[in-house]
Amino acid sequence: MAKPRETLTFPPSSSALIAPYLPPTPPPPSPLTKPFVTLTYATSLDASLSLAPGIQTALSGSESKAMTHYLRSRHSAILVGCGTAIADDPSLNCRIEGVGGYGGQGLQGQPRPVVLDPRGRWALSEESKVVRLAREGRGRAPWVFTVGDVEGGRRAVLEGVGGRFIKIESEEGRMDWGDALRVLGEEGVESVMVEGGGDVINTLLSPEHFGLVDSVIVTMAPTWLGKGGVAVIPEERRDGQGHKIAVGRLRDVKWVPLGDDVVLCGRP
Amino acid sequence: MAKPRETLTFPPSSSALIAPYLPPTPPPPSPLTKPFVTLTYATSLDASLSLAPGIQTALSGSESKAMTHYLRSRHSAILVGCGTAIADDPSLNCRIEGVGGYGGQGLQGQPRPVVLDPRGRWALSEESKVVRLAREGRGRAPWVFTVGDVEGGRRAVLEGVGGRFIKIESEEGRMDWGDALRVLGEEGVESVMVEGGGDVINTLLSPEHFGLVDSVIVTMAPTWLGKGGVAVIPEERRDGQGHKIAVGRLRDVKWVPLGDDVVLCGRP
Repeated sequence: MAKPRETLTFPPSSSALIAPYLPPTPPPPSPLTKPFVTLTYATSLDASLSLAPGIQTALSGSESKAMTHYLRSRHSAILVGCGTAIADDPSLNCRIEGVGGYGGQGLQGQPRPVVLDPRGRWALSEESKVVRLAREGRGRAPWVFTVGDVEGGRRAVLEGVGGRFIKIESEEGRMDWGDALRVLGEEGVESVMVEGGGDVINTLLSPEHFGLVDSVIVTMAPTWLGKGGVAVIPEERRDGQGHKIAVGRLRDVKWVPLGDDVVLCGRP
Repeated sequence: MAKPRETLTFPPSSSALIAPYLPPTPPPPSPLTKPFVTLTYATSLDASLSLAPGIQTALSGSESKAMTHYLRSRHSAILVGCGTAIADDPSLNCRIEGVGGYGGQGLQGQPRPVVLDPRGRWALSEESKVVRLAREGRGRAPWVFTVGDVEGGRRAVLEGVGGRFIKIESEEGRMDWGDALRVLGEEGVESVMVEGGGDVINTLLSPEHFGLVDSVIVTMAPTWLGKGGVAVIPEERRDGQGHKIAVGRLRDVKWVPLGDDVVLCGRP
């Protein structure tokens, strides 16, 4: 298959710098209790993912964009919340040179898109980018995690390209992160890159969930978006005496300048 | 004079990296319409200067702290709002090895502390750190910019160590940044490093003031402080059609990793 025009490359000199923060190859021996979890996002200097809810904002440069696609090629799955799926109609595939659909064979190197949609809000259709790419052999078919039942139309669309709805047991309609990751592990997913949106990231940064994360990769662009953006600012945290304390800090920190942006790598 | 224990050093290998963003030496020929303005601050990944108003939060590491003092040695003045003066009781002096009071002669290399206090809220006293350091010859005496009159007690304290209250003409009790910088220029101040707090920084990042800034140096620490912090998030900006747009972007960008932190240098 010829390489499509939008094929990206990420230089080995850059990928070597972030290699220590990527999922191990080969993965640890089975059975897997949960996949390796990489939390990744791109913000402005004032911690915003986008100018406003529902607006997709071009923040990072071409080098950082290529890095995101390289990261996707190094994970078994990429995961977003349904808010992102609805607002951005994202491709959720990998366009790095050499993966399936972009110079490579079959779907080799293409991650599995996973959308968390507990209440069935995402009206995916034949026109959704992620469905179209699966049909064209340029991305894997998505898995959608729900807690309720799904009406037949959407099920037909998704299953028509080889995707699945996966029902997660839950309490009171809320999806538990531990359960979702356990199911991914049971399905053989060795690593997952969590990409957004704001609610998903802020939840994973909370003290009760941060322990689920193995690696954090944050891109920052040298711009301020101003008030009213979709911000990565987790809920506040207090110690036993009620004093406010930092929510979390990274260790094994590395900052990698990339074009006009910087990439922060670290571990919780 | 013997060097005090808290003397800091900043390696030439690091200072060379930020040199292009510092005030020019020698300064441009007089008359000066305004000083060279460097905007500098340190935040968490979620854009907070501190955990809560009135709380001083240790964010950046020892290397970044030494850099801040090196920057102070390269500016004629350092400027903060009265909120910072009240909350932090800051030293506002320079402790880099070789400046006056820290191994050097007289007050050589010590910047002039400038506090913006339009409504006379800062109750400075003989015990204020900045007053004590001026008395001990380890920092210059502060200048306090006001718009109203100042009662005699505080005036006596400040003038007793060689400081000054400087009254800025204003409309309706608000201090205009252009006026304040013009007065600094008239007083012979060639460069000023604006250090905080949140209100001062957010104001200078607004489109109507960003043009006054010559250089921006931001330190970021790999931690999240959570909601309720003192955040550097400027007011939102809209274009002629009412669409939200980015508030500002830096050009000539350089990211300098320093310990666990990163230092972002750029120009508006």
